[in-house]
Amino acid sequence: MAKAPDFPSRLLRGYSTFREQRLPQESSRYKVLAETGQRPRTMIVGCSDSRAAPETIFDAAPGELFVVRNVAALVPPFTPDGEHHGTSAAIEFGVLSLKVRDLVVMGHGRCGGITGYLAARDAPPDLKGHTDFVGKWISLLKPAEALICEDPAETADRQRAMEFASIRQTIANLRTFPWIRSLEEIGELELHGAWFDISTAELYLLDKETGRFTVPEEIEV
Amino acid sequence: MAKAPDFPSRLLRGYSTFREQRLPQESSRYKVLAETGQRPRTMIVGCSDSRAAPETIFDAAPGELFVVRNVAALVPPFTPDGEHHGTSAAIEFGVLSLKVRDLVVMGHGRCGGITGYLAARDAPPDLKGHTDFVGKWISLLKPAEALICEDPAETADRQRAMEFASIRQTIANLRTFPWIRSLEEIGELELHGAWFDISTAELYLLDKETGRFTVPEEIEV
Amino acid sequence: MAKAPDFPSRLLRGYSTFREQRLPQESSRYKVLAETGQRPRTMIVGCSDSRAAPETIFDAAPGELFVVRNVAALVPPFTPDGEHHGTSAAIEFGVLSLKVRDLVVMGHGRCGGITGYLAARDAPPDLKGHTDFVGKWISLLKPAEALICEDPAETADRQRAMEFASIRQTIANLRTFPWIRSLEEIGELELHGAWFDISTAELYLLDKETGRFTVPEEIEV
Amino acid sequence: MAKAPDFPSRLLRGYSTFREQRLPQESSRYKVLAETGQRPRTMIVGCSDSRAAPETIFDAAPGELFVVRNVAALVPPFTPDGEHHGTSAAIEFGVLSLKVRDLVVMGHGRCGGITGYLAARDAPPDLKGHTDFVGKWISLLKPAEALICEDPAETADRQRAMEFASIRQTIANLRTFPWIRSLEEIGELELHGAWFDISTAELYLLDKETGRFTVPEEIEV
Repeated sequence: MAKAPDFPSRLLRGYSTFREQRLPQESSRYKVLAETGQRPRTMIVGCSDSRAAPETIFDAAPGELFVVRNVAALVPPFTPDGEHHGTSAAIEFGVLSLKVRDLVVMGHGRCGGITGYLAARDAPPDLKGHTDFVGKWISLLKPAEALICEDPAETADRQRAMEFASIRQTIANLRTFPWIRSLEEIGELELHGAWFDISTAELYLLDKETGRFTVPEEIEV
Repeated sequence: MAKAPDFPSRLLRGYSTFREQRLPQESSRYKVLAETGQRPRTMIVGCSDSRAAPETIFDAAPGELFVVRNVAALVPPFTPDGEHHGTSAAIEFGVLSLKVRDLVVMGHGRCGGITGYLAARDAPPDLKGHTDFVGKWISLLKPAEALICEDPAETADRQRAMEFASIRQTIANLRTFPWIRSLEEIGELELHGAWFDISTAELYLLDKETGRFTVPEEIEV
Repeated sequence: MAKAPDFPSRLLRGYSTFREQRLPQESSRYKVLAETGQRPRTMIVGCSDSRAAPETIFDAAPGELFVVRNVAALVPPFTPDGEHHGTSAAIEFGVLSLKVRDLVVMGHGRCGGITGYLAARDAPPDLKGHTDFVGKWISLLKPAEALICEDPAETADRQRAMEFASIRQTIANLRTFPWIRSLEEIGELELHGAWFDISTAELYLLDKETGRFTVPEEIEV
Repeated sequence: MAKAPDFPSRLLRGYSTFREQRLPQESSRYKVLAETGQRPRTMIVGCSDSRAAPETIFDAAPGELFVVRNVAALVPPFTPDGEHHGTSAAIEFGVLSLKVRDLVVMGHGRCGGITGYLAARDAPPDLKGHTDFVGKWISLLKPAEALICEDPAETADRQRAMEFASIRQTIANLRTFPWIRSLEEIGELELHGAWFDISTAELYLLDKETGRFTVPEEIEV
């Protein structure tokens, strides 16, 4: 058997801890869900940010959350052009193949993608940077600016206002997928918005009636 | 404050557990990493599968892993065409902005994306189904077929052979990004392959010299 | 276009009523669930009895209940012998392919299958009748006799006691399917028992702790 | 009285609606049919699919339809081998004990059992999946392939052609039951075929002379 001298040692240690501490209580879940297939009820569109792992924040067991993660937790509008759309493919797999009931768009505070968007928007052209894929990707945020609430409490923090607006925009983009809109209309799929404050670990939820983000009573601590 | 009557109750309960059990020992990490920014050393390209969460398998603390997840843990080849490439944007953000040192492509057993690829390849055209984004996305697997090892132990399990080959292909695709190849050449970035057996929770690592996947001695249990 | 002179006219009239009254409010459900596939959360094992249709009793919309119905709502024990097991195939399809979360065994009062079982058991051999398939099928009830509660309120009505016991037995038989037991153990599937009184339309539910059938408070009318 | 905290709440709500809205107009039917026994005139062999409930489609009152439902609405050929044949037992109970006059085999569009049959037939052996009961059950469809009409309008849609052929095959299988054939010959029992388009809610009926499925004039809308 080969050694693994260059595999990140922190990961190897973490994996050992997982085997010793977590696996014993989850081994039957892994075994059963391997044999019978995964059956998650919830899909999360989350950010790649290392501080915003959905499984950690929601204390999820293996098999509970189907998760797509990219920079800033974005979903492009429905674009059936035959190109490779990784995020849309994951949405399709979760909603149509796995038949999840809830689809949660989860943003978070201090999001580097949002910061980058705001910085690039205001930067002089010669400082817009070399990162072409990120720049193009976060240009998906442009229409979200129109979804910033005219609420002093929200606009006071420009970064956070944009993070909230981005979640609203991604939900709007999800509704451009015809089967998402259809399933939502007949009550077979629910869309939710959530925002995680990585500093205080507070979870804000999007109120569908008011369009505002609040920390709901029942989860206040 | 509003209630959150329709937010998935399982998630709210999980979040409460996180606040009570995990947060007390991580709250200073969250606070410091909010103020100083995230500084993960490792980026993971993982699958959206609910049974393959990197943070769980590697027992990762907040801030340790920058993670992009999509169907089958794929990365398209470098394609600077000005389109919205979510996965490539995440790679770019992780490697160039966050300056991760290790980039791990992690596949897993019983991957629905791989199963779908193999089934669709052999299905008659009129039964290929309506899932266009998934079909197009997993067509990225086609060149991986040439990377299946001519090893009886590997080819005996067709699904797993394809899962291994897919990881090899994604690593090859990553090397088409000019800055990845350059950083790897000067020793500033390492690419790794890993495969998680969701049934037994064994972790196989890609041996860079032989190209084979094995369970290394030091993490055998 | 052909006429349908011999198709039961009652069904044609009922279908017309369905088109006029129910379809207008369900047409989008039919259309969406045709395009995106069915996604029922609940499977019912029910009786073929004309007075015990699950969709009627639970006021179910199209797409809500995956239903297998046979004489007396029975499921044979797990028997992987390569024969044609229609009920087991439906269970397998509902639990493994559709990934239902709840599996309800629903018996009912005045069940002809139960009556037939009790009559045949006590009949002299020459009167056991010519109906071989029914006789063999309801012989699945034999082990259920041991599950009759020693409770005067239950044993006073011998037919009903056997109907309750049959539901307990079918749930026990379901647990001989390895993937049902496994999924139940990890909390991904719940088994329930219910009994519908076709005379009074009362719904009794199996209390999992006591093993008794009662009309729960919250659905009393 | 016990509560029913884990019984699916959707079912409890639906049952309450049934008690409030439907039961008042059906309570005497339930009471009389409990005292005098069920006397349905029609038996339906239907599919377990959640979108194809016979009582809904034919707007049936309690007591009208005796219904057996399994995957793909199949009936095996007469096989008096002493095994547990649930579907044959229901047929026997409906035809001989309840003396129904009409026996309707009702298939429907987008049938997962038919899709599974076609996919499995063409799949390589190692991808046929682990679902043994379904695989064996739908192998009953094999002889139906010979009953696909050589009609371009029918063969253009391979799935639907197989759905039509399956109904023809099940009717042929029913005629292998000696008492069904005898009763049909003396005009005491009629066999019918129907196919429900779950997308448009159109009902196609089998024309016994031509063997084709058409939407009859009198139920066109």
